[in-house]
Amino acid sequence: MSQFEVPALRASQARLAETLHESCQFGAAHPYGSDTTETGMARLSLDDSDKAVRDWFIKSTEALGCKVSVDEMGNIFAVRPGKNNNAPPIMMGSHLDTQPTGGRYDGILGVLGGLEVLKVLNENSYETEGPVGVVDWTNEEGARFPKMAVSSGVWAEQVPLEDAWNLKEVTANHDNPKTMKEELTRIGYLGKNPASYRSNPFAAHFELHIEQGPILEDQGQKIGVVEGVQAFKWFEITVKGRDSHAGTTPLYARKDSVLSAARMVAAANPIAKRLGGLTTTGIFETKPGTVNTMAHTVVFTLDIRHMKNDVLSQMEEECRAEFQRIAHEDSEKGCEVEWKLLVDSPAVEFNPDCISVVEQSATDVCSALPQTHPDGKLWRRMISGAGHDSCYTNTRCPTSMIFTPTKDGISHNPVEYCSAEDCALGASVLLGAVLRYDKLRAK
Amino acid sequence: MSQFEVPALRASQARLAETLHESCQFGAAHPYGSDTTETGMARLSLDDSDKAVRDWFIKSTEALGCKVSVDEMGNIFAVRPGKNNNAPPIMMGSHLDTQPTGGRYDGILGVLGGLEVLKVLNENSYETEGPVGVVDWTNEEGARFPKMAVSSGVWAEQVPLEDAWNLKEVTANHDNPKTMKEELTRIGYLGKNPASYRSNPFAAHFELHIEQGPILEDQGQKIGVVEGVQAFKWFEITVKGRDSHAGTTPLYARKDSVLSAARMVAAANPIAKRLGGLTTTGIFETKPGTVNTMAHTVVFTLDIRHMKNDVLSQMEEECRAEFQRIAHEDSEKGCEVEWKLLVDSPAVEFNPDCISVVEQSATDVCSALPQTHPDGKLWRRMISGAGHDSCYTNTRCPTSMIFTPTKDGISHNPVEYCSAEDCALGASVLLGAVLRYDKLRAK
Ligand SMILES: NC(=O)NCCC(=O)O
Ligand SMILES: NC(=O)NCCC(=O)O
Repeated sequence: MSQFEVPALRASQARLAETLHESCQFGAAHPYGSDTTETGMARLSLDDSDKAVRDWFIKSTEALGCKVSVDEMGNIFAVRPGKNNNAPPIMMGSHLDTQPTGGRYDGILGVLGGLEVLKVLNENSYETEGPVGVVDWTNEEGARFPKMAVSSGVWAEQVPLEDAWNLKEVTANHDNPKTMKEELTRIGYLGKNPASYRSNPFAAHFELHIEQGPILEDQGQKIGVVEGVQAFKWFEITVKGRDSHAGTTPLYARKDSVLSAARMVAAANPIAKRLGGLTTTGIFETKPGTVNTMAHTVVFTLDIRHMKNDVLSQMEEECRAEFQRIAHEDSEKGCEVEWKLLVDSPAVEFNPDCISVVEQSATDVCSALPQTHPDGKLWRRMISGAGHDSCYTNTRCPTSMIFTPTKDGISHNPVEYCSAEDCALGASVLLGAVLRYDKLRAK
Repeated sequence: MSQFEVPALRASQARLAETLHESCQFGAAHPYGSDTTETGMARLSLDDSDKAVRDWFIKSTEALGCKVSVDEMGNIFAVRPGKNNNAPPIMMGSHLDTQPTGGRYDGILGVLGGLEVLKVLNENSYETEGPVGVVDWTNEEGARFPKMAVSSGVWAEQVPLEDAWNLKEVTANHDNPKTMKEELTRIGYLGKNPASYRSNPFAAHFELHIEQGPILEDQGQKIGVVEGVQAFKWFEITVKGRDSHAGTTPLYARKDSVLSAARMVAAANPIAKRLGGLTTTGIFETKPGTVNTMAHTVVFTLDIRHMKNDVLSQMEEECRAEFQRIAHEDSEKGCEVEWKLLVDSPAVEFNPDCISVVEQSATDVCSALPQTHPDGKLWRRMISGAGHDSCYTNTRCPTSMIFTPTKDGISHNPVEYCSAEDCALGASVLLGAVLRYDKLRAK
């Protein structure tokens, strides 16, 4: 692909850091140090702090001259006009929601990085060929409502709107969980615009994100040029036994759903290990949930991941067979096990043009840095372990991603950290990629 | 011990059945058939239905001429006067609370059987030597507030009042659990009388209860003369790991508290099997509880039981060692495990005089039945697998128990069942035991 010459505009490290931490006043939680930035986040999708940061985001983008719209999934689109405004916008997007014990960078950097790009364009009075914007996707984490990137999924028409609206929260109100639609309505973010790439198409989607893993840090590199995302699936698994008395029911007479489910969770791990994948159980609930009664039902989640679709399928098949065996043969009088698919995200390959402009931009931005890396390259191509909204946008428009280093590879944890310098480098690479893609589309 | 001659008074099968099911209108739940009696119960201690059945119980006993008092744990004492009212009463007691998916007999039969005994005494104008009463103990199940028989425990001065009052519910309001004291206050059952055997002594305590296990049914027998209760302990076990991302954290870098805890639950079972005891996990909670974040913390309960105190200790020691090993050596980067004791109930041996009068009464009542058992005995001595309020009263006054058959040995389940005939037989044995003990104390 041809190389594009664009002006050497750069993000402001200080301003980006300030705005990022300003936005984190909403939902700050789990302090781990004395500085106000030394806290994690608990900004669950569509809760009061998410409403507050949304209001703040709209005010901030409107102040930059953007036109802002909200769709029926609460996705917020802020678009800065270009020369030709009949063309669809190039969008820079990520999410402002976090895990219950989340950090200040996951998703947030992508949205705030986009905002910083718009500021640089404004202060340089840079006129893009077509419009350029920033999007805040709703409930990317899949933390409160257990479908990750559900709202970019609706936009991409990969997730039915009603399924998304009816998703029930899993992180609070266990006795009376709220649905996404109820919460969108409550906080005033149930927009009128259809959530669809048809009525709201993008020229491209670029997502800046922390790596969330250890590779860049371990390799002493600064930027990940993301070529794709590993395959993963989320399941809700229900194990049914029989409730009976913990003190009077002999072991041989039990249908102990907790014992059965515990054996399943333990059995998934060596399967993942042998096949080079990952399995994780994050939710495990017992009903009725008293000390001295065997639970009649356990509901647990299983998140399985692998770089390759076919090995992911094999992992799933082996888990299904082993769980069935445990339920029927290794649970005394036997239990029943049912699987429900929550998320199916096949391995993703991003768009070569988008990858290329990111690579050009990374080369350019990194060339100004002290060349500390033995191979002379401060960026690398890589695959994402985590899913992102970009997995869905990629099905409907050219897409790719930019990664920044993540301290100790730790994410989904309050201490998650990316230095202000690295955040700004990432935003500068995002800026350069967008300007190059803007040139490409104009050709 | 000498044999006591008492009049052959008998419980009314029809009246007991009617009153028992009348009392079950409060908190009926989980229907399994079309008849109004074909439902289980969900009468959690100190909830609205528990308040309703308490009000009903007080009205019923006052109508029989009882003096009713309530202590600071909400225990209700209804006492029918005798000839000499300076003597402490012989109490018949059990509990009206149930499991969330509980049945219509566990505990309920003991209180309603006591009520039936008072009715028989009244209609026969039978004057006992000293007072005789019925007690409804609060939160015997330990279902809502996780300490079984906590209120007879306070009465026996084996559980400190403040510990009991501060117990937090585990079955609802997970975000803001209520304490026992708050709920006692809310439903108006925080009595003024001290909950203590010192100011409120008993001459004896007799408890009629369903067996909750399969032995009587399997043996074709009608009455269990309960000699004691197996030893058990309840623990709350906390496993601490580190929250991190399910898709980007390699297996070797994990401190996965769910995997660690699942391995512990699975490991307890073969220990119990080998040593001839029981282990049960009924509650297993993950925090923060999202699909794609490893939980930083799991809290699970472990209920361990054995007939012998020393083998129970060995089971505990083996579980402690194995859990420690799993946390440190079999959980990748390692987790921490902490144990908290919730209930410690050593093996109980009931009072020989009480056992003897129950046996005399059982012999008498069973002698009128068709002799269907090959050995010619329709009752048997036995040990209880479940704990009861009688474990605590036994530390402060002569105590024993009477068991009735339980269909398929199933308890703590909506289909729990004891036929009307067997309920009445049990109540008649209770009546005969109380009258004999009344003679004994007068000697
Ligand atoms: N970026 C991120 O953490 N998204 C959550 C989706 C996933 O579980 O991979
Ligand atoms: N009777 C009864 O089920 N009580 C609960 C105490 C126990 O767990 O043994």
